[in-house]
Amino acid sequence: MRTVSENKCFGGVQGVYSHTSEVTGTEMTFGLFLPAEAETRPVPVLWYLSGLTCTHENAMVKAGAQRYAAEAGIALVFPDTSPRGPGVANDEAYDLGQGAGFYVNATEAPWAEHYRMWDYVAEELPRVITATFDIDEERQGITGHSMGGHGALTLAMGLPGRFRSVSAFAPIAQPTRSDWGRKQLTAYLGADEATWLAHDATHLMRETGFDGEVLIDQGGSDQFLDLLRPEALAQAMAARRQPGAFRMQAGYDHSYFFVATFIPDHLAFHAAALTR
Amino acid sequence: MRTVSENKCFGGVQGVYSHTSEVTGTEMTFGLFLPAEAETRPVPVLWYLSGLTCTHENAMVKAGAQRYAAEAGIALVFPDTSPRGPGVANDEAYDLGQGAGFYVNATEAPWAEHYRMWDYVAEELPRVITATFDIDEERQGITGHSMGGHGALTLAMGLPGRFRSVSAFAPIAQPTRSDWGRKQLTAYLGADEATWLAHDATHLMRETGFDGEVLIDQGGSDQFLDLLRPEALAQAMAARRQPGAFRMQAGYDHSYFFVATFIPDHLAFHAAALTR
Repeated sequence: MRTVSENKCFGGVQGVYSHTSEVTGTEMTFGLFLPAEAETRPVPVLWYLSGLTCTHENAMVKAGAQRYAAEAGIALVFPDTSPRGPGVANDEAYDLGQGAGFYVNATEAPWAEHYRMWDYVAEELPRVITATFDIDEERQGITGHSMGGHGALTLAMGLPGRFRSVSAFAPIAQPTRSDWGRKQLTAYLGADEATWLAHDATHLMRETGFDGEVLIDQGGSDQFLDLLRPEALAQAMAARRQPGAFRMQAGYDHSYFFVATFIPDHLAFHAAALTR
Repeated sequence: MRTVSENKCFGGVQGVYSHTSEVTGTEMTFGLFLPAEAETRPVPVLWYLSGLTCTHENAMVKAGAQRYAAEAGIALVFPDTSPRGPGVANDEAYDLGQGAGFYVNATEAPWAEHYRMWDYVAEELPRVITATFDIDEERQGITGHSMGGHGALTLAMGLPGRFRSVSAFAPIAQPTRSDWGRKQLTAYLGADEATWLAHDATHLMRETGFDGEVLIDQGGSDQFLDLLRPEALAQAMAARRQPGAFRMQAGYDHSYFFVATFIPDHLAFHAAALTR
């Protein structure tokens, strides 16, 4: 693992690191915020999965999460959103290929060789981080924005027992019924829609739900409401009587200004589950 | 004035606007955060001047100031750091020309035609903003980072009575004795160093000080300590018995992670002066 940068921040350290991933077969970069407490004892960790076009950096510099993570003594991990590099398949569209991994393991050419973001986030990066930093694996939460909210919800429900808490900002809530999903799932997983269901948060909420609290924030003036399909997830949460909250925030759009506004609530939500 | 974007943020609105500047002779872009209170009554305003290479955008998305401005009911203005455009003089160096206006009115060719950032920030932009938005001109504070800290301090001390409070993050504290200053002041103002003194915060602190409180934060591990010369300003503040505080923050560098860490303190500092 190589240190790209380390900056002192709210008494802790905001680091950026890179490593050669066996899962993706590429060099992968991630951000990690460690609060001051990490110097003396294992700390809980909150995963933050980012959206389309983002790298590890966007949320790390725009969401303002570090202050609240520092106050709560929680580490933050910011993975990249796809494999990258000149030898990695890509597409001209912003919503397919590099920057748009959708947190799945691709099975179809030309994507299958490198696009294994489910295994990367679920298996390899946790191993890399816990091998180097003093992270308490028993206390993990996960959140994300847009495509990253999709990833957070599907990983949390798809890996029962892994995460104590899950939240999302404007998640892609039903990709199997959306143009943010059908194109990508066809490309990465093929035409058999049965293989898509493990990657549809609304389907997973209907079938299994989450063993813990769920917090969803959605901007009421989000320019992508028709693609995100939040009402499908909200209805599934209601039908299941899923513990947690789905909040429609009037006037807010899809930007990081929306994320920054509600990140304090999400950190408090995760801290309640992770620091008890 | 044209609206570039408006995003709801912490109950208020983070806007980006552009206008044709008579002072610089160019199109100028600025950010303005208005808290919810601005819908019903005039609000105080805090100016945030940015550093080398920055536009209006960097602090607006990275500093995390909006939360605290919203809590205090204070507007934030984020001006650009220079005139810009294909017809505007520039230099290959990152620290001269576009992105590096140094908050002076240039008198020398080729800069004099457009580089009038002192007048732009001190005169024109306040007129533009107060003509459109419900800002209380009697309650203004100013802050900034690096070159913007230099601008904040020189404007605050150079315009007595204008600002109730001034603070700075890692300001260029003594440009007349630094390679971050001598080159630029020579280019913009000419070789007569007497014309430079109005733009040297340490000189102004020695000669006049500030009629109010001053707050300076400086990272102890700042990679640019030798260029910033914080000890000169600290010594001038001590010699004058200037009300306020100069704080050396051990371990912090020059980045926005440093700014974000201490922005809550600065907003609280300005709020105490602006909302009483």
